[in-house]
Amino acid sequence: MLKIYGCYKSRATRVLWLTEELELAYEHVPVIQAGKLDNPLAADAPINTQSPAFLAVNPFGAIPALEDDGLVLFESLAITLYLAKQYGGEMGPKDLEEDALMMQWALFAATEIESNALKISRIAADGRLDSEAGKSEAAAAARLLKRPIAVLENHFAKNEFTVSDRFTVADINLAEIVRYAQPYAPLLDANPNLKAWLERCQSRPAFKTMWATRAAEK
Amino acid sequence: MLKIYGCYKSRATRVLWLTEELELAYEHVPVIQAGKLDNPLAADAPINTQSPAFLAVNPFGAIPALEDDGLVLFESLAITLYLAKQYGGEMGPKDLEEDALMMQWALFAATEIESNALKISRIAADGRLDSEAGKSEAAAAARLLKRPIAVLENHFAKNEFTVSDRFTVADINLAEIVRYAQPYAPLLDANPNLKAWLERCQSRPAFKTMWATRAAEK
Repeated sequence: MLKIYGCYKSRATRVLWLTEELELAYEHVPVIQAGKLDNPLAADAPINTQSPAFLAVNPFGAIPALEDDGLVLFESLAITLYLAKQYGGEMGPKDLEEDALMMQWALFAATEIESNALKISRIAADGRLDSEAGKSEAAAAARLLKRPIAVLENHFAKNEFTVSDRFTVADINLAEIVRYAQPYAPLLDANPNLKAWLERCQSRPAFKTMWATRAAEK
Repeated sequence: MLKIYGCYKSRATRVLWLTEELELAYEHVPVIQAGKLDNPLAADAPINTQSPAFLAVNPFGAIPALEDDGLVLFESLAITLYLAKQYGGEMGPKDLEEDALMMQWALFAATEIESNALKISRIAADGRLDSEAGKSEAAAAARLLKRPIAVLENHFAKNEFTVSDRFTVADINLAEIVRYAQPYAPLLDANPNLKAWLERCQSRPAFKTMWATRAAEK
């Protein structure tokens, strides 16, 4: 049986949203980041990225990780693309051109957007987005995102989806990375086509189920 | 005919090494970064990432870019993976498991290694690696690389290649990113299995041809 390692409050959301879309059966192992624990190696510590039981599966100690019939995979975007190709039907690429574009957008999001978007997400998670200092840091991150976000705005001015004319794994990968910047409203307000696309993605029942489960996670 | 946009002194090397390996026929358009020119829009400026002729092909203005029978692709690692799947035979994945691992390592290299390795590459390119300040900056970048480089050292202690038991596009993608850290010798000296793998990759005739062409580029 498919096993997915990684709690909901991690990049595992990408994978867990996709499994909802596909109604895939899997075992979920809610591994958490060791850095969130005072003593990750304590006998009563919850399973985490330093737990010997997890390292025996994934020596790299990274979440999310996937186990599928002998294949062990890390890197969340590689996991979603693999699952979509293996089990996803129309949610995955239907030819090599679509496959290439799905890789392109995954790499673009991971290298051009994710790190600055995560800065905004962390400021919001720390409850600092209403403070002057927090707002100013978020604005600085948003400025660094201006160019890649303009690329996406331009894309969604002309296209309804990330790749082709249907919702695919490429939308999940991109939406879950753009989501990190969502708490800083001026950025998406200035890019209405991107904002509308993100809202369409997040209105899907599978996203809502994943999101509610994430919110309920202890 | 396949068209590859991007000068050799850019991430296009990944693509140009692969085309050497595969002996692919293509037209090369040596687009350079606009940032390297005083006036990229001047009538006599060489073709660059702000040239209207290039933007007409790739509105994102990024190199390398690929054009193949109507498909326009950017993101160097997506380009190499596409070419290997479309034209690469054994150089590409032979099943979805290999395909997934090739994506995994490309994403790992791009997100965990590239930016700090590039810092070392730039210090070396500026001729500052012999100065105390340059050495100290390179050492700082090397410290940030310690954990992901240890993942690779561990991998190559047990495996001859990045994916499977043969040289593939996954080796080119990873080697071209690890190469950026190569000028700072202590890092690779401390990781002998990784160093030996990189030297094996770079001893291939296709790499040497690409590298000589790069050195001769004006």
